[in-house]
Amino acid sequence: MSASAVEATVKKAWEASTFIGNASTIQKNKALENIAEEISAREESIGQANQKDLDLLQKKGDYSRAFYDRLLLNPQRLTAMAEGLREIAALPDPVGEVTSMWKRPNGLEVGRVRVPLGVVAIIYEARPNVTVDTAGLGLKAGNSVVLRGSSEAFYSNQALVKAIQKGLEGAGLPGRGTVLVEQTDRESARELMKLNRYLDVIIPRGGANLKKTVMDNATVPVVETGEGNCHTYVDESASLEDAVKIAVNAKTQRPGVCNAMETLLVHEKIAGDYLPRVLEAMKEAGVEIRGCSKTRELQPEVKPAGEEDWGTEYLDMILAVRVVKDLEEAIEHINTYGTRHSEAILTSSYQGSRKFLQQVDAAAVYVNASTRFTDGNAFGLGAEMGISTQKLHARGPMGLEALTSSKFIIYGNGQFRE
Amino acid sequence: MSASAVEATVKKAWEASTFIGNASTIQKNKALENIAEEISAREESIGQANQKDLDLLQKKGDYSRAFYDRLLLNPQRLTAMAEGLREIAALPDPVGEVTSMWKRPNGLEVGRVRVPLGVVAIIYEARPNVTVDTAGLGLKAGNSVVLRGSSEAFYSNQALVKAIQKGLEGAGLPGRGTVLVEQTDRESARELMKLNRYLDVIIPRGGANLKKTVMDNATVPVVETGEGNCHTYVDESASLEDAVKIAVNAKTQRPGVCNAMETLLVHEKIAGDYLPRVLEAMKEAGVEIRGCSKTRELQPEVKPAGEEDWGTEYLDMILAVRVVKDLEEAIEHINTYGTRHSEAILTSSYQGSRKFLQQVDAAAVYVNASTRFTDGNAFGLGAEMGISTQKLHARGPMGLEALTSSKFIIYGNGQFRE
Repeated sequence: MSASAVEATVKKAWEASTFIGNASTIQKNKALENIAEEISAREESIGQANQKDLDLLQKKGDYSRAFYDRLLLNPQRLTAMAEGLREIAALPDPVGEVTSMWKRPNGLEVGRVRVPLGVVAIIYEARPNVTVDTAGLGLKAGNSVVLRGSSEAFYSNQALVKAIQKGLEGAGLPGRGTVLVEQTDRESARELMKLNRYLDVIIPRGGANLKKTVMDNATVPVVETGEGNCHTYVDESASLEDAVKIAVNAKTQRPGVCNAMETLLVHEKIAGDYLPRVLEAMKEAGVEIRGCSKTRELQPEVKPAGEEDWGTEYLDMILAVRVVKDLEEAIEHINTYGTRHSEAILTSSYQGSRKFLQQVDAAAVYVNASTRFTDGNAFGLGAEMGISTQKLHARGPMGLEALTSSKFIIYGNGQFRE
Repeated sequence: MSASAVEATVKKAWEASTFIGNASTIQKNKALENIAEEISAREESIGQANQKDLDLLQKKGDYSRAFYDRLLLNPQRLTAMAEGLREIAALPDPVGEVTSMWKRPNGLEVGRVRVPLGVVAIIYEARPNVTVDTAGLGLKAGNSVVLRGSSEAFYSNQALVKAIQKGLEGAGLPGRGTVLVEQTDRESARELMKLNRYLDVIIPRGGANLKKTVMDNATVPVVETGEGNCHTYVDESASLEDAVKIAVNAKTQRPGVCNAMETLLVHEKIAGDYLPRVLEAMKEAGVEIRGCSKTRELQPEVKPAGEEDWGTEYLDMILAVRVVKDLEEAIEHINTYGTRHSEAILTSSYQGSRKFLQQVDAAAVYVNASTRFTDGNAFGLGAEMGISTQKLHARGPMGLEALTSSKFIIYGNGQFRE
């Protein structure tokens, strides 16, 4: 029965979680190093497994070039995976940190210590790199990890999880600290989302549909890693030269990712100066422009942008442009259409910068920089588990700390309550 | 149409949330003081509304004395509510605190600032004190608050929310920053639980059934405030005199609350000395004892405890007692049957205390003190919004900080991504 097979797999990870949670930093780092070595040593067998997935995909037909590319594992990519694991090993261990401790009038000492979440489940699409990346981050934060990849990456994931389990065992940790749910049908996924007894959190990593399915069906707490409809607002006092460079960077440096800019907002007082410069640079970079009516008065060749454009995350070389009458209108536009991911103001105004930082409701709010910096590495958190756009638990790039919880510890010497 | 009425009410709170979130501490404290005054000034009308609820309850019949008592508002209780609001005003404002800020190699300064969650919804039972308490805590943390009380407290809640809204308006804040969902049918509650567009979190405050309904039906993130099947483990090296006082306190000082002890675990080496002393004291206090077979060998008059007792939160003057062979067995018992709320070890062993603190998985883990201390006031957090037994976002007593989120703020001077 597929139903109980999912539960049995998850239960194994749950049983292992005490051991993973109590492992020393040395042990966890040893396991990460072992896994890196196992992946390199198994280059051939992992490659064969991956080829099986790729062959099945080609037989099935009907897939995009990008999909095939994300699924592909080659020696360089395996080396990068191993390198990523070594980087995780080099990060400080978040578990056991006493974040604060204080003394109460009755002599009780009350403190908070960082502890693992327990069992972290990831539901993701056909990207085998997520398998290794996630297992590594989850392990370093002291968690058991339940991986539920998609059917297209089945053999690749199986081969990678074998390497991971071998690496754990080599460090004296239970191999079932990372498990792969091998049932890839929808029913099994839905069953997984309701295993509150064994799972502490589910993180969906993938497209909007996957996230919606998880949000709608899970009873296990979910951390939503979100879409980014990001804006850059060029204020009347901005350095126009910087504003051209930053806007082009935010749009074009990697247009397919969530922290890329989708809409450029421009103060009407500088629109006449700034728009011709930035739009020329955008066009040179190959960006298609869709503008509001004021933009089109100044640049008549621009296509019209409508209500739909303001709400769209293009993830492509397309940019919506809107002229606004002031900072307030820019903030209102962002708080109305944004997805609360990454938002930037370019300005020389002290008051303008303060107002934007305070009133824009987003995971990351920038002054005078490109929104492209929103990720764990650029923020100095190390590798990340996605970028949360919800407000509960973790917001913005989720590093190792986002994979931990806390507990209160209380040192007494006989206190009881009066 | 009832459906859209719920949404319309919630939308009002959402629209107000920008203003509440940007209110100064002075303004929020003024509003709290105003609400306290309004409640005192409206003693009579609130009392009449409450009487209407009480009359309807009596007409309906079929209710417990405790239920009636929880619903009852009298001048003393209204004064206590006002006092509670003034205590919240005296707490430090969590909003705006920059919890850390650091500089990246490229000169970007990245920091995290505490911000309101946005809109906090509470679903609760017939306890009008929760109405005021919740509105006060939510407001101080900069949130709009959506209150969904039960039908039995309808008129009381309506009268209290009027006082709250007047208090907000008197401080120049939108009255709709706190709203009451007046539809108290099940369908409306379910609709509320899915309004992800407007709500940032739902906190159920009430019994196990209410919590389960919310967990099962909500798509909005939930913080579960939990049950407490709490244990005290008396180690072989414990001071037996302290261990009698602490155990009796943990069981009897207020047996109906979640941090009261439900099971006493005793090391077999001291069971012969300790059990007669503690059980005599328990019996004197009126506690019914249910013991394991070893307990009954030593104290044959004790009723037998079974598997079901280990998993029961009595919330009553009943205590389960089990003799264990060592610390490891105690920890295993707790991690198997506990609800991860509050757990204590009484010991003189350094190693034993460390092991218990590290390996027991609970929101609050004590050495040599009564579990009865698990609450916001006793921990020094001020008033609380319940005690979370989930690991995500907040664990243990939830003070004002648990009602906030964070955002990354980034100060640049022209940086873009290479």
